[in-house]
Amino acid sequence: MAQQEQAGTPVLEPASPRTPASPSNAHRLFRAPPKPASVKINVEGAFIVNDETVTRNGASEFVHWEQNDIRLPHHTDVVSHIAIDIGGSLAKLVYFSRELGSAIGGGRLNFLNFETDRIDECIAFIQDLKDKQSRLNGSKPADLCIMATGGGAYRFYDKMRDVLHVDVVREDEMDCLIIGLDFFITEIPREVFTFSETEPMNFVEERVDIYPYLLVNIGSGVSMIKVSGPRQFQRVGGTSLGGGTFWGILSLLTGARTFDEMLAMADRGDNAGVDMLVGDIYGTGYGTSTNITGLKSTTIASTFGKVFKMKRAAEKHAEDGEGLAKEDPDEIAGFRIEDMSRSLLYAISNNIGQIAYLQSEKHELKHIYFGGSFIRGHGQIMNTLSYAIRFWSKGEKQAYFLRHEGYLGAVGAFLRRQPKNWGRRNSIEEISLARVMSKE
Amino acid sequence: MAQQEQAGTPVLEPASPRTPASPSNAHRLFRAPPKPASVKINVEGAFIVNDETVTRNGASEFVHWEQNDIRLPHHTDVVSHIAIDIGGSLAKLVYFSRELGSAIGGGRLNFLNFETDRIDECIAFIQDLKDKQSRLNGSKPADLCIMATGGGAYRFYDKMRDVLHVDVVREDEMDCLIIGLDFFITEIPREVFTFSETEPMNFVEERVDIYPYLLVNIGSGVSMIKVSGPRQFQRVGGTSLGGGTFWGILSLLTGARTFDEMLAMADRGDNAGVDMLVGDIYGTGYGTSTNITGLKSTTIASTFGKVFKMKRAAEKHAEDGEGLAKEDPDEIAGFRIEDMSRSLLYAISNNIGQIAYLQSEKHELKHIYFGGSFIRGHGQIMNTLSYAIRFWSKGEKQAYFLRHEGYLGAVGAFLRRQPKNWGRRNSIEEISLARVMSKE
Repeated sequence: MAQQEQAGTPVLEPASPRTPASPSNAHRLFRAPPKPASVKINVEGAFIVNDETVTRNGASEFVHWEQNDIRLPHHTDVVSHIAIDIGGSLAKLVYFSRELGSAIGGGRLNFLNFETDRIDECIAFIQDLKDKQSRLNGSKPADLCIMATGGGAYRFYDKMRDVLHVDVVREDEMDCLIIGLDFFITEIPREVFTFSETEPMNFVEERVDIYPYLLVNIGSGVSMIKVSGPRQFQRVGGTSLGGGTFWGILSLLTGARTFDEMLAMADRGDNAGVDMLVGDIYGTGYGTSTNITGLKSTTIASTFGKVFKMKRAAEKHAEDGEGLAKEDPDEIAGFRIEDMSRSLLYAISNNIGQIAYLQSEKHELKHIYFGGSFIRGHGQIMNTLSYAIRFWSKGEKQAYFLRHEGYLGAVGAFLRRQPKNWGRRNSIEEISLARVMSKE
Repeated sequence: MAQQEQAGTPVLEPASPRTPASPSNAHRLFRAPPKPASVKINVEGAFIVNDETVTRNGASEFVHWEQNDIRLPHHTDVVSHIAIDIGGSLAKLVYFSRELGSAIGGGRLNFLNFETDRIDECIAFIQDLKDKQSRLNGSKPADLCIMATGGGAYRFYDKMRDVLHVDVVREDEMDCLIIGLDFFITEIPREVFTFSETEPMNFVEERVDIYPYLLVNIGSGVSMIKVSGPRQFQRVGGTSLGGGTFWGILSLLTGARTFDEMLAMADRGDNAGVDMLVGDIYGTGYGTSTNITGLKSTTIASTFGKVFKMKRAAEKHAEDGEGLAKEDPDEIAGFRIEDMSRSLLYAISNNIGQIAYLQSEKHELKHIYFGGSFIRGHGQIMNTLSYAIRFWSKGEKQAYFLRHEGYLGAVGAFLRRQPKNWGRRNSIEEISLARVMSKE
């Protein structure tokens, strides 16, 4: 095997600690006294609105709009930038729009995404936003600037500039994730929550003292980032078994064509149809006791562990001249595709949960936040992640989730930019400082 | 979701420390002064033979013989037991046979396995051994005793007793794994090795001071066991993503019908055909640098991460009336099944490697041994596991492998039994004690 191939062997590698050179320190906005070069988005009184009646601009069949916008009632400054976080599978957009007709005033942050493969449609959408700048946020089309992060900020840099004729400012991916997460944790009420079956969305108070923590970002792949303080972070690990694995294997096995379809199948499935449980190995007479193995009989011993032997048995059956049973379209070799979906969802969520717990132990991090587009507010995923963290930590740690879990990087990139004519009003820094002081 | 289902959610659970009540303490044979009730297999001068000319007894088309027997030139006592470790996928057998015609004398340990689904053939094979007891090892058929471990020791307990009319003694699975591993580490030359591409089998000296260590046993599922001393062990973790996952998913995707077939496909494959690499996300112009992400462009970002989007693109293409390309039988939706095999082999091995490293850190264990039937002496698996341990530990730890990696439990069960008329010669304890003392 060549050395070059070897390089592809490991899972995502831990990077050395990064200390970006940029003097602009958006991240400390929520912590430190005002600095002239910082972002001036006024978040005073920010709240989440679930507003299905809003007419969405630039209808494209490929756009996916989120319903949970963030209202910023006191921000009236001109905003001349939009932010985009282009990952391996999804391109996430965040932009500001004024609420001219509203009694409350101010504006809102809009959240939407495209599949990265639809980047041309995404760019066309941005072109449409550009044309509407003056109505949207009081800016001029020519002033539009794109704050871009994620791998696609590099891969599609030339394309965005060439097609849109605008400035594209690239920001470090990890940096943006952390800035976005810090913003959500410290500034947005009813954003961060814990999950349990009895209480699926138990919101936690906005925190002031947030460091250190572990961020587990689950997109196509998984990154785990230790955050020690403002702008102090290190990628400590990750796994290549992420959303892309779930989507990829299931699209081959089941023919499902959307992620939502796969999740719906998982909800209907029973993983015991394909997984080998402890009870399958020990027999039901013994496996129900935890005395012998220390494990419950329903514990998953091997993901998809029933498949190989049962498939072989069925083929043997067929060879013996008894014929294969007529295949149900919802089955492959006698296995239900719903069961496969459920099994894979469990396996990937469990695995991320265990690694996240072990990383949090190694780095002595008490709080674990889960972000990224894989989660999508899906109950089974959050339940499994929560259970894994509680289980492995013997109840000492818990998993935290966010309503805008897929937009940490995009929001972080958005906040890295200082709007036009800032300084006319209260800056986020002044508000945040006041908040910090009033809480202390 | 019902609470009962929830119990199935976690990966294999850590059990509380086990201190088996049995006073028989085979495990300390290699460490402590002689005790009357201990195993008396004479391992003086034991060595591994790769002897393809040996006529194997009881030919069954379902038996898989190992070529690496262990010769015990000085053991001449009667042995009236055989050992079996019945896992979720494989039943592993170890038995002793005298070398009557040999100039060296003594006897040998034989290693073989059946698929657990072929348990009837396995039992027929044992019946055959029973009938040949007097020739094999000087025992009488009626004296035969089966030392059984693994889940199948419970699941098939009644069947073995009813069909064979012999005693079946069940032994704790973890207990046997540890006894077997300790035996291999301390007593068998050229058994334990490290793996690298340049030196695939770098044997390490038999060790005296072996504790503490981590055992990672990879069968259908994966168990990780912290071993602090003789009979002091604790299951600290594991993962359901193991051999059964590899076999199961690949048998559905590729139609391969044997594990060896799947491994051969993996050897021919290129995981980049299905995996999303860092370079795929960042673009080749940037991803080759490690400055932006801290990751190499060939690093796997998402296992199977290319599949979903490319499959969608192909289907779109077909809908546009351009038709799907004629499918190659070695492809599914345009993806090579060899590439899928390689990808999954990498993913599962990497994942186990990372979790093993993290567990070894948490429990402060310097040595990590990998056992279990998934490995099968396969270079790609050992290379990936070795690389993962070296990578995550920054070169401070390494992975150890064994030539009899699949037989730890079976050998442990074998050593738990005291042969007939023990005590006539040097016992293993006396030899081991002499060894220990001479090395000190």
